[in-house]
Amino acid sequence: MPPTPPPPRPTAERRRDVLAHLADDIDLWLATASADGEVHLVPLSFAWHGERIVMSTLRSSRTVANLRERPRARAALGGLRDVVLVTGPVRIVEAADLAEGATAAFADHVEWDPAPDPDYLWLELAPRQILAWREENELAGRTVMRAGAWVA
Amino acid sequence: MPPTPPPPRPTAERRRDVLAHLADDIDLWLATASADGEVHLVPLSFAWHGERIVMSTLRSSRTVANLRERPRARAALGGLRDVVLVTGPVRIVEAADLAEGATAAFADHVEWDPAPDPDYLWLELAPRQILAWREENELAGRTVMRAGAWVA
Repeated sequence: MPPTPPPPRPTAERRRDVLAHLADDIDLWLATASADGEVHLVPLSFAWHGERIVMSTLRSSRTVANLRERPRARAALGGLRDVVLVTGPVRIVEAADLAEGATAAFADHVEWDPAPDPDYLWLELAPRQILAWREENELAGRTVMRAGAWVA
Repeated sequence: MPPTPPPPRPTAERRRDVLAHLADDIDLWLATASADGEVHLVPLSFAWHGERIVMSTLRSSRTVANLRERPRARAALGGLRDVVLVTGPVRIVEAADLAEGATAAFADHVEWDPAPDPDYLWLELAPRQILAWREENELAGRTVMRAGAWVA
């Protein structure tokens, strides 16, 4: 038998843990799909800046092609037994269209600055839904953000 | 500056590492999409049995609904700096339709047996493409399986 997990975290604690992952994690998994439902999944580096997940990837990538057709994604942070799933619309932008300081925050956090490379552009995911759970006993109450608002 | 990564692994070494992840990992991320391109991403437990990724999930889940529309998925194993991405068709089956020993192998590996619960059914992913890389210097040569065949 697996060991008994700790008791489920209350919502406020999950929110703090989610914000810590958003602030501290370097990479996430990003799932996108084409308009006709071909799914894609890749690891990307990110920074959390201005309440947005800021990423950079190749202009020619399938992720960008999918997001042009379907500007929405689901990202997985944390880990497989410390799940943070973030869903929301994604803007595809040039560096100049990001919020002030976003590219510098990204380069500092990730230790990589794609800004000078014209092959790269930027993705900005605005969280609408965030789910957080560790073990099965945390599946109830896993919604920490709904319709863009943190659950109280 | 990030530390210099080790030299890229040759294909045979990546294949061994992929097979070790398939044999030893307990959980993966599974990305699916609906026919009209709404993406979904969840953590699932799995076992590697008979050259298939065997998983079990709720009959009522969005993953199952998506796979009924679009029987294809992309799974992420390993980790964000030790990436294993497996893409292929997924069969949705009852326990009796799995290969001999598959449900027992799953229950033994995952320490959880969904077979007695009628709310659960089984998913079987047949790898067609497998990609494996650690750092950027391994992006070249990341294809270790193509069209269902291991790359020599």
